[in-house]
Amino acid sequence: ARQGAPEVVYGPGKTAGEIAAVVSALLARNSGPVLATRIESAVAEAVLAAVPGGAYEPAARLLVWRPAPTGSFAVAVVTAGTSDGPVAAEAAAVAGALGLAVTVVRDVGVAGIHRLLAETGRLRAADAVIVVAGMEGALASAVGGLVAAPVIAVPTSVGYGAALEGVTALLAMLSSCAAGLTVVNIDSGFGAAMAAHRLAHAAARHASPSAPEPGGRR
Amino acid sequence: ARQGAPEVVYGPGKTAGEIAAVVSALLARNSGPVLATRIESAVAEAVLAAVPGGAYEPAARLLVWRPAPTGSFAVAVVTAGTSDGPVAAEAAAVAGALGLAVTVVRDVGVAGIHRLLAETGRLRAADAVIVVAGMEGALASAVGGLVAAPVIAVPTSVGYGAALEGVTALLAMLSSCAAGLTVVNIDSGFGAAMAAHRLAHAAARHASPSAPEPGGRR
Amino acid sequence: ARQGAPEVVYGPGKTAGEIAAVVSALLARNSGPVLATRIESAVAEAVLAAVPGGAYEPAARLLVWRPAPTGSFAVAVVTAGTSDGPVAAEAAAVAGALGLAVTVVRDVGVAGIHRLLAETGRLRAADAVIVVAGMEGALASAVGGLVAAPVIAVPTSVGYGAALEGVTALLAMLSSCAAGLTVVNIDSGFGAAMAAHRLAHAAARHASPSAPEPGGRR
Amino acid sequence: ARQGAPEVVYGPGKTAGEIAAVVSALLARNSGPVLATRIESAVAEAVLAAVPGGAYEPAARLLVWRPAPTGSFAVAVVTAGTSDGPVAAEAAAVAGALGLAVTVVRDVGVAGIHRLLAETGRLRAADAVIVVAGMEGALASAVGGLVAAPVIAVPTSVGYGAALEGVTALLAMLSSCAAGLTVVNIDSGFGAAMAAHRLAHAAARHASPSAPEPGGRR
Amino acid sequence: ARQGAPEVVYGPGKTAGEIAAVVSALLARNSGPVLATRIESAVAEAVLAAVPGGAYEPAARLLVWRPAPTGSFAVAVVTAGTSDGPVAAEAAAVAGALGLAVTVVRDVGVAGIHRLLAETGRLRAADAVIVVAGMEGALASAVGGLVAAPVIAVPTSVGYGAALEGVTALLAMLSSCAAGLTVVNIDSGFGAAMAAHRLAHAAARHASPSAPEPGGRR
Amino acid sequence: ARQGAPEVVYGPGKTAGEIAAVVSALLARNSGPVLATRIESAVAEAVLAAVPGGAYEPAARLLVWRPAPTGSFAVAVVTAGTSDGPVAAEAAAVAGALGLAVTVVRDVGVAGIHRLLAETGRLRAADAVIVVAGMEGALASAVGGLVAAPVIAVPTSVGYGAALEGVTALLAMLSSCAAGLTVVNIDSGFGAAMAAHRLAHAAARHASPSAPEPGGRR
Amino acid sequence: ARQGAPEVVYGPGKTAGEIAAVVSALLARNSGPVLATRIESAVAEAVLAAVPGGAYEPAARLLVWRPAPTGSFAVAVVTAGTSDGPVAAEAAAVAGALGLAVTVVRDVGVAGIHRLLAETGRLRAADAVIVVAGMEGALASAVGGLVAAPVIAVPTSVGYGAALEGVTALLAMLSSCAAGLTVVNIDSGFGAAMAAHRLAHAAARHASPSAPEPGGRR
Amino acid sequence: ARQGAPEVVYGPGKTAGEIAAVVSALLARNSGPVLATRIESAVAEAVLAAVPGGAYEPAARLLVWRPAPTGSFAVAVVTAGTSDGPVAAEAAAVAGALGLAVTVVRDVGVAGIHRLLAETGRLRAADAVIVVAGMEGALASAVGGLVAAPVIAVPTSVGYGAALEGVTALLAMLSSCAAGLTVVNIDSGFGAAMAAHRLAHAAARHASPSAPEPGGRR
Ligand SMILES: Nc1ncnc2c1ncn2[C@@H]1O[C@H](COP(=O)(O)O)[C@@H](O)[C@H]1O
Ligand SMILES: Nc1ncnc2c1ncn2[C@@H]1O[C@H](COP(=O)(O)O)[C@@H](O)[C@H]1O
Ligand SMILES: Nc1ncnc2c1ncn2[C@@H]1O[C@H](COP(=O)(O)O)[C@@H](O)[C@H]1O
Ligand SMILES: Nc1ncnc2c1ncn2[C@@H]1O[C@H](COP(=O)(O)O)[C@@H](O)[C@H]1O
Ligand SMILES: [Mg+2]
Ligand SMILES: [Mg+2]
Ligand SMILES: [Mg+2]
Ligand SMILES: [Mg+2]
Ligand SMILES: [Mg+2]
Ligand SMILES: [Mg+2]
Ligand SMILES: [Mg+2]
Ligand SMILES: [Mg+2]
Repeated sequence: ARQGAPEVVYGPGKTAGEIAAVVSALLARNSGPVLATRIESAVAEAVLAAVPGGAYEPAARLLVWRPAPTGSFAVAVVTAGTSDGPVAAEAAAVAGALGLAVTVVRDVGVAGIHRLLAETGRLRAADAVIVVAGMEGALASAVGGLVAAPVIAVPTSVGYGAALEGVTALLAMLSSCAAGLTVVNIDSGFGAAMAAHRLAHAAARHASPSAPEPGGRR
Repeated sequence: ARQGAPEVVYGPGKTAGEIAAVVSALLARNSGPVLATRIESAVAEAVLAAVPGGAYEPAARLLVWRPAPTGSFAVAVVTAGTSDGPVAAEAAAVAGALGLAVTVVRDVGVAGIHRLLAETGRLRAADAVIVVAGMEGALASAVGGLVAAPVIAVPTSVGYGAALEGVTALLAMLSSCAAGLTVVNIDSGFGAAMAAHRLAHAAARHASPSAPEPGGRR
Repeated sequence: ARQGAPEVVYGPGKTAGEIAAVVSALLARNSGPVLATRIESAVAEAVLAAVPGGAYEPAARLLVWRPAPTGSFAVAVVTAGTSDGPVAAEAAAVAGALGLAVTVVRDVGVAGIHRLLAETGRLRAADAVIVVAGMEGALASAVGGLVAAPVIAVPTSVGYGAALEGVTALLAMLSSCAAGLTVVNIDSGFGAAMAAHRLAHAAARHASPSAPEPGGRR
Repeated sequence: ARQGAPEVVYGPGKTAGEIAAVVSALLARNSGPVLATRIESAVAEAVLAAVPGGAYEPAARLLVWRPAPTGSFAVAVVTAGTSDGPVAAEAAAVAGALGLAVTVVRDVGVAGIHRLLAETGRLRAADAVIVVAGMEGALASAVGGLVAAPVIAVPTSVGYGAALEGVTALLAMLSSCAAGLTVVNIDSGFGAAMAAHRLAHAAARHASPSAPEPGGRR
Repeated sequence: ARQGAPEVVYGPGKTAGEIAAVVSALLARNSGPVLATRIESAVAEAVLAAVPGGAYEPAARLLVWRPAPTGSFAVAVVTAGTSDGPVAAEAAAVAGALGLAVTVVRDVGVAGIHRLLAETGRLRAADAVIVVAGMEGALASAVGGLVAAPVIAVPTSVGYGAALEGVTALLAMLSSCAAGLTVVNIDSGFGAAMAAHRLAHAAARHASPSAPEPGGRR
Repeated sequence: ARQGAPEVVYGPGKTAGEIAAVVSALLARNSGPVLATRIESAVAEAVLAAVPGGAYEPAARLLVWRPAPTGSFAVAVVTAGTSDGPVAAEAAAVAGALGLAVTVVRDVGVAGIHRLLAETGRLRAADAVIVVAGMEGALASAVGGLVAAPVIAVPTSVGYGAALEGVTALLAMLSSCAAGLTVVNIDSGFGAAMAAHRLAHAAARHASPSAPEPGGRR
Repeated sequence: ARQGAPEVVYGPGKTAGEIAAVVSALLARNSGPVLATRIESAVAEAVLAAVPGGAYEPAARLLVWRPAPTGSFAVAVVTAGTSDGPVAAEAAAVAGALGLAVTVVRDVGVAGIHRLLAETGRLRAADAVIVVAGMEGALASAVGGLVAAPVIAVPTSVGYGAALEGVTALLAMLSSCAAGLTVVNIDSGFGAAMAAHRLAHAAARHASPSAPEPGGRR
Repeated sequence: ARQGAPEVVYGPGKTAGEIAAVVSALLARNSGPVLATRIESAVAEAVLAAVPGGAYEPAARLLVWRPAPTGSFAVAVVTAGTSDGPVAAEAAAVAGALGLAVTVVRDVGVAGIHRLLAETGRLRAADAVIVVAGMEGALASAVGGLVAAPVIAVPTSVGYGAALEGVTALLAMLSSCAAGLTVVNIDSGFGAAMAAHRLAHAAARHASPSAPEPGGRR
């Protein structure tokens, strides 16, 4: 990757030693943020001991070294219910580490539509909205109708039975009657944040095409 | 079936002659409404010619003989979009033929939430609400949060791709974050109307347990 | 929620401390019943110690504070087999806590149809019937043919192989040849009870439209 | 195949000429019944013109040459509803052509359980029962509980939406709470009749092990 | 159930005490065999201590009281591979306890077709054949072509990936090109044995219609 | 919708007359572009005759009135193969009508990776990339690795058998190893264009927050 | 593609004119065989008129220009039943056009295992075997056990109900108990022939690594 | 199996004692390699103690006795990402034990296409390529376009959500736009190696038809 671009290690299936080795190499080879996702706290401690200078965010299960300074691109992360919290935390923490300005709007599922409407202002203030919802995932459609900004929908595996471990929310978001929604993989707070980072990149570049890029793959 | 209870013939796969024969027998054997569902107009004409006294509602593809007088139980039939119309028409026409007082609220999908909220009064005035929605079926959750009355959700096969011919809306409605919704089969406006009829029956009986039943299977 | 309406906390994924905090807040904010579902006994004990005045029903894994007084709306909860017991227990306990008059009819699966027929009287005495059945879920169709009242079918994850963890029973109930059945999510005794509560609400309101509501979301 | 055993040609995808050729060859090579299944009437006429001595049963879409004399093994073919008729007709016609003594019991779906019970005598008189049912397929479970004889369940593609073109009835029959049911492919009246023929073979052989077989593959 | 008919308790989800209670009641109420399936050895010991006179077959995880005397109806249980052993053991043990004469033919999967052909004699000697196979389940088709007797196919959950925990074998057996196969649920050695028992019943009754039944549900 | 925002009518299931009526109303009520999607040429002619001022793009099956002037936001629409053409045409035509500057890069599927690499320059010049691919949808991953800009992946129903009418490409794109891709519904060139329009909106607003919006839902 | 390598045009969705244009370009640009698959006879005639020198094989729906001379690599194409014929024809015709020496072995499905065994010699004489089978696809496992050569299994969409349009055969072949089978897409006679062509290439190259390649993608 | 052919024991569900017994028998009965797959290290130690002369490869979870001498047929095993390592290790170790000359090319997923292209030389040097990839499995298509040799694609269960435990990669590989790919079961490094062994066999035989076979099933 180019200088300044973020590098992300996927934790599951790797030992603390393996993660530490990869992270060290990435820190040496590049100058941008380095992240490790889906890290349990015990592993995190061992990795941080081996590779100093990092920080662990337990709710997001995220390790971060050299977070990017917070820029001007504003992202709202919105959740339907309490159980969607961990996925939203990952989205928010990854986005923050990549330099996006993150706001979190919690527990505004469509079964209580007035709570969502009360947040219209905060939603419309964002340059992009990440909607995190499980069960039937209806929140994405409602938000898609409220804002003109890009909406990145993250289905979660919250729910049981017919929720099919997130597949129902995924299919529902893809079939949304709100036009122009986009969708990422089930429980992928990480994917949503990376998509938002691409948006921030596009907006910055569009504003000043000749300026250095804020991080990416060029 | 008991005297006064409705009888319903399912049209597909039967000739006009077969339908006429069954309908005639049911009219003779009983005293309540007799319906035939999913009837194309050419077939309807032939059946009406053979069994006088009936009426055809083309939008609902429904034939009705001896409709029940309209009672006091109020049902609102709500649709998400234009394409959900035929299923809603079937629900409304069957419910009307069974003596329910029907109101139709059209095109209030959650991507335009303010249109739905503007109809809150009409929705809350109903004794039961039938929600007809395809694609992601999110309307059921929003309505379920707005009214305290029973909600019968009808997923429709409207949409393409990930909508999976109604399966996505079905799964979404069953996984709804709005508590106490109930669901019927895909495109089954008929099933929803029959469920509403059972509700009307229960309400009437509950009000005056010893009174004669308004139609049912006792 | 409006004064007097029930509030329900979903237990899974929350600590005893978190549950206690939410329940305390709900008890303070409102005057109706407060429930917590899917609570294991160890957690229940800790929550009850922190929030006095509640009661735990182990078979239903339910915690209840301020149960509603039992009213006149009668619900029969019917099961196909022994393994459907826990889901039926949840349905019965939640319905009871919301003020419905609950009867339980056990182990009347259709493979022994005479046992079911012997219970026809108790089934017909109810204002609504909740049918709890796994495997092929055939009991819902049989009950739907025996009673004129609303039937709420709850598929359970009982069975193996082709039972597909409840999906088969779910699909079967939705495809039932008995008209007007409604269905809730797999294993959702809670959902069925909430649906019955909506029915009781509709019946009460219908009987005396101007009277205060027995609990709901108005 | 051995002398006297039945031979069956599968019609779809073959021209009348091709069917006539295969049937002629089979008639010459063997001495038992020769059948052709799923034949539309126009094709049937052409084949019968080319290969004399056969008969066409339109409801079953079956062509038969040299039907076996009717023996003592009694099979009841039971249907849930009118739409299951064609599949039942195929089962009955194939079984009859193979020498089984066939009774048909119609329209006894579980939503009207008393109609089924009224037929208990005819069902118990059979040596084997073929149950033909679509939608939720619940009839198989009810019959399985009423008779001690072998039950061969045939799911049909009757129904819409959640009936999934017969898959729901198939899964339901395989998950039945009635022990010892067996299941054949969706809409395979042919398969059920062949399974019944195997049963008749086993019963005859068991009764007099040294006697010549009534038709089979030995 | 009628005097002499078998009674079977399904173990999973029940305590040793509950199983013992049900078994005792069944032994008292009836005179035929009583079985409990899917019982782990520790539970079995406790149940046997509480209800004397029973025996435990660990490979089949089966408890049996009052097994039926072995009769003349011969069943061959055939397996494709070593891993199909436990399901075959359940089929064989249940069939044996119900009075069938059982032979087991092991490890004759179609990838080594000559091993299967070498067993043709034993297969043809049986009155019925139970085929137990996982992965692609091809053994059922091969056996169906070798014998004229009834074939009951039991798909197993053996295999990984595309084997889909038995669903692939199930679908394959239902789609078999060998005519007249019948299929039971995945891993249901029990179901296959009960189906064989129904066959034995039919054969015995057919041989001497007025004789007392060998066990069933009449 | 707000003044200047686009309005889109979904054609299927509507007559030319109905489409003309809706389009006329939208043209009168608002000042932005009005589109109708999935319109066959015969219908298009009739609608254009009734509502003058529109234009029809046959490859995209799109009708457009009052297209927006082309702005500075550049979108590349990339296809894997010839058969993906119609979906790409819809994406390109809708995006163009909404004022985006569109480039189309054709037939660069990953089986000929050098053709894709030869287009790297055109891809990197775009502010956002829409990838249209059926079959296994691998092109989205390859493009995601080549550009830092937002990637909107559109799975198409091109392919047969295991391609499952677009479901395979959909699942593959959602599971992509290239981070930050987003996905829309199968064959939804429309959805991808609307998502790109949201991006353009965000970029424009980000560049000059106080300027009037280029079209949206505010 | 390199000089001498085959080029293949996929016909569906293209007009005769479009096909003729592509074929002409490929004939001019390269020196190897040029094929067009899935071409109906009317289209074929038009294309042949426009691009002389080609030949049409109707059973395979294949157009061929400049077929490769037949080499020494021998491929056996084996089918389970009559209905698998068209897919086998495509496999055989494409393989032949690419220079492979093709033998076809017909109708040796496992339900008649002795017919298959009688062909063992022809099967073992081949350098590679293509197995074409629908329904349960069991033939692949049986052939895999009979030969040591590479086996390419082609599932077909032959069958109904549980055959799921070829998905069952596909899953079964992938789960085969015969080790080292490989599988291509449903109905893809073309894919199997191309895979065999890759094998011939590898064998030829392995035999004389420095010799010119017999056609491929280098 | 014939003298010299490999024998492979499937470990899961077998005790160390059972594995040792089967391996000993196979070593005695034959002269070729004997393998045991999917063996955990503790079990491996016990088996090696009981059956001397074997070796354990922990990354591949493989036990090998009498490995074949390495021949001239070259196989490249290519992986998309780190998590695909264990499946690739099984493929490489089994192939090596069967006498193939194995090269491993790691971590060349299509999201970083230049890393893959940099390995083109090593890939083209191989007689056959095994591609191991999870998530969307796109690597198989890219490799299929780069080499003319046979490609055996192994989907892995790496990924989450829409990756559906390997089903997505499986379907994607079967739907690949690169012609002539073949596919084996999910996570079946073993199956891919056995398929490669069949290829080596074919190539050797083709080169010198009368020479003794390098191992197989003849
Ligand atoms: N057992 C249950 N199944 C489904 N939903 C439930 C259950 N128990 C409570 N709920 C719903 O969960 C929501 C509360 O979720 P939470 O805020 O996480 O406690 C409320 O809308 C309840 O109606
Ligand atoms: N309706 C049917 N459904 C399934 N299989 C059938 C049917 N009719 C005939 N067959 C079987 O199809 C095979 C004959 O196929 P064919 O050679 O194509 O005529 C025989 O094995 C028959 O047992
Ligand atoms: N091709 C399309 N695919 C999906 N949605 C569409 C398409 N064209 C229009 N729409 C949406 O359909 C809705 C209009 O539907 P209707 O009222 O039926 O015309 C609007 O929300 C549009 O955004
Ligand atoms: N990892 C594996 N995956 C699939 N099949 C295997 C594997 N290892 C061995 N086998 C096959 O399993 C069979 C032996 O099974 P078993 O008799 O249970 O040891 C042989 O046909 C092997 O080819
Ligand atoms: Mg939600
Ligand atoms: Mg909708
Ligand atoms: Mg049940
Ligand atoms: Mg039925
Ligand atoms: Mg097997
Ligand atoms: Mg593609
Ligand atoms: Mg076949
Ligand atoms: Mg991958």
